Amino acid sequence: MNWLLEKVMENVCISYMSADENKQQAMQNVHSHPEATQEKLIISNECQWKPWKPARSQIRGCVRRARRAMLSLAQLEWYCYIALGVLTALMSFIMDLTVAKVLRAHQWLYSRLEGNALLQFLCWTLYPACMCALSASFSHSTCPQSAGSGLPEMRTIISGVQMPDYLSLSNLFAKFVGMICTLSAGSTVFLGKVGPFVHLSHMVGAYLHRMYVSASGQNKRRTQGEMLVVASGVGVASCFGAPISGVLFSIEVTGSHYSVRDYCPCFFATVCGALTFRLLAVCSGEHETVQALFKTRFPNELPYQLPELLMFALLGLLCGAVSCVYLFSHRWILRFVKTNKFISRFIATETTLYSAVLAFLLALVTFPHFAGCYMASKLTMKQLLFSLLENIQWNSISHNATVIQESHHFSQEWSPPGISVYQTLGCFILIKIWLLVLACTLPLPAGYFMPVFVFGAALGRFQGEVLAYLFPDGISSVNVINPGGYALVGAGAFAGAVTHTLSPALCALEMTGQSTHLIPILIATLISNALSRLRNQPSFYDGISLVKKLPHLPSLLRACPKLSSIQIRQFVVPVGSVLQRGERALAVQHILESSMETDFPVVDTLESPTLLGTVTRAHLQAFLLEDQNQVSCRCLEDTCPIQPVRLQLSTEMTVKQTHCIMSVVREHRLFVTEKGKLRGVITWSEMKKMIEVLAKEV
Amino acid sequence: MNWLLEKVMENVCISYMSADENKQQAMQNVHSHPEATQEKLIISNECQWKPWKPARSQIRGCVRRARRAMLSLAQLEWYCYIALGVLTALMSFIMDLTVAKVLRAHQWLYSRLEGNALLQFLCWTLYPACMCALSASFSHSTCPQSAGSGLPEMRTIISGVQMPDYLSLSNLFAKFVGMICTLSAGSTVFLGKVGPFVHLSHMVGAYLHRMYVSASGQNKRRTQGEMLVVASGVGVASCFGAPISGVLFSIEVTGSHYSVRDYCPCFFATVCGALTFRLLAVCSGEHETVQALFKTRFPNELPYQLPELLMFALLGLLCGAVSCVYLFSHRWILRFVKTNKFISRFIATETTLYSAVLAFLLALVTFPHFAGCYMASKLTMKQLLFSLLENIQWNSISHNATVIQESHHFSQEWSPPGISVYQTLGCFILIKIWLLVLACTLPLPAGYFMPVFVFGAALGRFQGEVLAYLFPDGISSVNVINPGGYALVGAGAFAGAVTHTLSPALCALEMTGQSTHLIPILIATLISNALSRLRNQPSFYDGISLVKKLPHLPSLLRACPKLSSIQIRQFVVPVGSVLQRGERALAVQHILESSMETDFPVVDTLESPTLLGTVTRAHLQAFLLEDQNQVSCRCLEDTCPIQPVRLQLSTEMTVKQTHCIMSVVREHRLFVTEKGKLRGVITWSEMKKMIEVLAKEV
Repeated sequence: MNWLLEKVMENVCISYMSADENKQQAMQNVHSHPEATQEKLIISNECQWKPWKPARSQIRGCVRRARRAMLSLAQLEWYCYIALGVLTALMSFIMDLTVAKVLRAHQWLYSRLEGNALLQFLCWTLYPACMCALSASFSHSTCPQSAGSGLPEMRTIISGVQMPDYLSLSNLFAKFVGMICTLSAGSTVFLGKVGPFVHLSHMVGAYLHRMYVSASGQNKRRTQGEMLVVASGVGVASCFGAPISGVLFSIEVTGSHYSVRDYCPCFFATVCGALTFRLLAVCSGEHETVQALFKTRFPNELPYQLPELLMFALLGLLCGAVSCVYLFSHRWILRFVKTNKFISRFIATETTLYSAVLAFLLALVTFPHFAGCYMASKLTMKQLLFSLLENIQWNSISHNATVIQESHHFSQEWSPPGISVYQTLGCFILIKIWLLVLACTLPLPAGYFMPVFVFGAALGRFQGEVLAYLFPDGISSVNVINPGGYALVGAGAFAGAVTHTLSPALCALEMTGQSTHLIPILIATLISNALSRLRNQPSFYDGISLVKKLPHLPSLLRACPKLSSIQIRQFVVPVGSVLQRGERALAVQHILESSMETDFPVVDTLESPTLLGTVTRAHLQAFLLEDQNQVSCRCLEDTCPIQPVRLQLSTEMTVKQTHCIMSVVREHRLFVTEKGKLRGVITWSEMKKMIEVLAKEV
Repeated sequence: MNWLLEKVMENVCISYMSADENKQQAMQNVHSHPEATQEKLIISNECQWKPWKPARSQIRGCVRRARRAMLSLAQLEWYCYIALGVLTALMSFIMDLTVAKVLRAHQWLYSRLEGNALLQFLCWTLYPACMCALSASFSHSTCPQSAGSGLPEMRTIISGVQMPDYLSLSNLFAKFVGMICTLSAGSTVFLGKVGPFVHLSHMVGAYLHRMYVSASGQNKRRTQGEMLVVASGVGVASCFGAPISGVLFSIEVTGSHYSVRDYCPCFFATVCGALTFRLLAVCSGEHETVQALFKTRFPNELPYQLPELLMFALLGLLCGAVSCVYLFSHRWILRFVKTNKFISRFIATETTLYSAVLAFLLALVTFPHFAGCYMASKLTMKQLLFSLLENIQWNSISHNATVIQESHHFSQEWSPPGISVYQTLGCFILIKIWLLVLACTLPLPAGYFMPVFVFGAALGRFQGEVLAYLFPDGISSVNVINPGGYALVGAGAFAGAVTHTLSPALCALEMTGQSTHLIPILIATLISNALSRLRNQPSFYDGISLVKKLPHLPSLLRACPKLSSIQIRQFVVPVGSVLQRGERALAVQHILESSMETDFPVVDTLESPTLLGTVTRAHLQAFLLEDQNQVSCRCLEDTCPIQPVRLQLSTEMTVKQTHCIMSVVREHRLFVTEKGKLRGVITWSEMKKMIEVLAKEV
């Protein structure tokens, strides 16, 4: 933050500086820093008219001293990580605050219309329809790439493929505003913010990285990967204030090899993000101290009995099975939307109308006077999760009037008069899964992790409540069953199964601030993951990657393992501009004019193209210059230093191996040789084409 | 486990099978599984005398069905991971149980000698001296490589270098028994079990891996790396029942790139290990349900006030500074012991005597009637940690007699009559650090993580108690200060700073079963890590690697970053046996006889050795055979298929890059070319030599 401030202030100083003072100082400095001062002299001549000399020079001196002190403390990139964490957390907090206010306004309006069913119906249905329409139209008009979660695209970028539109500032703006609208639509459309938030964090990271590169002059490509991996962790951490699951997520989001170098920066940035997010909650008066987002009050002494571990394992199986159904339906509807001509054309041309109509339909189903009363539809996403994680048995509430007042008021929504909690939970599970599948087709910025998480909590709660009914005194008669624990375990296990990751388990623990259910949640998540990964079934994000045909190799290989043996032979393209060792000036000039490359491969002769190395454009230009001056007859080999090629591949390499080496070594270009002869070149653009060809085969 | 049982049982079945029954069944099977049956026929002929035909055949059938069912459920390696987790946890539990019993016996004996100071002195000093002598002599005579932590060597093996002695079964046995003796010496010698336990887990993993390779026929080298990474996590997880810090540790222990493929197996195995460890504690009646090892009872509602975050950051700084002192002293004493001729010869020849004398000296200092009364020396390591993590203020105990009875009795050891807790904690911190530095020179199997962890807890407790004294009503007068929280944060931060890792922070949380102090512990650990990593100071394990001159590249590069630009040019060795494309049978025969390689590089001619590819030994033998039969004049190129070389390096590659590529691609051998000409070869043994040469330069 300070660094950014300092850059901005230095610019301000320079632009407002008068010529006299500037020259005077320049003359003083010229002996100590001759190069830097020359630059400043040039700048100062342009801004002779600017006022407030002494103040500006003082500020500039302070800024310079502060900058020196900061850089002596830590390297520039660490300030970038701090800025990344703080900015992302700030965005997350602002988003949460705005959404909470809008939702409260909607709830207030709805409650004031009590008694007039028609007005209530209009308020209930038109409000999310308008919000979704606004979100879709805004994001679509500002940056069409901002629709959806953004996480599949981010995984693709992290794996090495460039997709510049997805990291632009216009996308950041569109996604941020779009997300606020989407979330303001409430639990009716049942969408979350994690995926888009990771995307937002990536965009902030990419922007900071551009500033870092311009300030430090580091290799752009090499450091961008690091920043994006760190940003993935920060996205999750500042969404939930959960630093460690952020770190685990950043490992899972990496394709094949996680660079251990990124581990410490990632930890550091996630802690910055999580701390800022939680501190902002304290500053806004939401919490008294830095604490968990969805704080639970499970008993610490004996959170569960030993035989309940079996029940948790069973819950893992249940979550795994339901996740298979959900993933299948999700892929089916994505394919249907893409292949059905009418719908795909309708979405493409009438994005806003489609969003509004679908949001209206979803709101229709969840209208509290209709099916909504069976699924606690009045609660927001946060309230839903809070209520599901309560450690009191709802079963006992409905029979015992005194307990109602003690318990949290959200749980009353789950047992409205005349309806049992089993009916509401059952309805919620049976209806919400299809509504969620439908909501996934909405062409607006939206996350799909949180709804899945809440749905898993409902699954777990249902099993917990059923067990509490079957064993009212607990399984081994020592302590009663806590359905909140089952909800927690279910949430982690279902979210893990849908995304084929394990970090949701830890995320659930960090969100609740209690680690009493560590072992049960890990067991359930591992079991549900095992079930949902059977027969190479793609995960939620893999499914989107496959349907969208994104050039993301790991998801392709998971879906179709036999692709991993495909060799690069058929994809290798010949090198455009090749020089011979004995090349003369004329040919070199022709090649320099016809190509924009910065370095060129040199071979023995074009007939027997044994790869000797590369020469840079600068050396070639020097060669041409020398040739013009001396009118000598020297050839390329005599004048230009030929740099050896560090790494050569053969055409027998598989696409998978090549991808792995390119991402690990972070090389932009690798030469392909066969028996020493140059056959072609592989760059990331060829790699992208290869993966796109493979994607068509799946 | 089941799989192992099944293998053993199948062997038993086969060996006890009579010839008749065997032949009969063999005839039935011969059509369905001709190859497998032939093998069994051979076996069965050898064991015609064996009784109980029908029972054996039934058992064998059951085993076969069970095996088929298990393999249809999951692949063989997952059973290996289960076995790894369960076996390691079992070993950990047995070790803990034995040590606890021996320590209790010693405490009982010491208390029975109350009144006779001389006998108490002898009991106090001779007992640990004997135990250390036993540990040193047993481990030294059985397997000298079992001394020390074993973790630096394991990191070297994981990075790719082979050190077979460190994974042998004799080492496993020596280390296990030696560890029991070392830990039985109690808190007097102040040593732990984590490092050796990770080593033990590696040895179990390597053994299971050998069985897996023989059963499945997989590539040995490729899968061993996976198993060892998983085993690192399991070692930590089954020591503390902490699965997630096990996973983080397995990432930190990896050199440069962590394969995301290992992530799920690692999670799975660590959960198996942690669950078994905790279940065994329940089965033994130690706990009522599956719960944390050092369960704390910190308040959940308001664990700390916001301004205390600054104090935690200060604690991080303190831990970082003390860790620098400790690391410097540790490296100094290691170098001194190695370079001082008398001591190094004494340790080498009189291992047992040295251990006994040093343990005696350590016991002398900690004798309760001497300095021991100032440092709670009567408590075992576990009791020390339990007492330090108590959430009651000790300061209030010493003034208020009624609180004493309510509080845990361990804390009384910290405030003996007439001595304040500040004095005892101060003495503990000032004396124990030097005793620990001395104890690190003991040539016996021992861990150094737990003592560092306890020491950090004491540091944190000291700061907590001082703050509690300065602010008796809490910093912001809402709730009182909890010194136990400071102890927890100090433990994580100090252990993290000493080892340059972040997993101890999570380990502390998992060990206590409460995540109330998640943010403070992460902040303190990051700060202490930053401080202890200043100026490329090596970590505890890096220091051992450097002093022992282990071929571990990452620790070398961390200690001396300029080594990362050293190229492989000077280390490349010429290839021993090279074939020319036009090679005749006689020369091929000569090369085959003189070398044991399985494949050989083929070049154009020896004068211009353009690398064409490799041929396998089998193809060369076929070529010789054909040549003998046909008396033809065909050359090598006409007959043998030349496999292209997938990856070629140039001599310009740096050692770091080469190491990274070899570990990521898991290639055993890479050819080095220059302008297409073969210059040499790099295998892991060359890599080991390179690193050893570099190590001499540090």
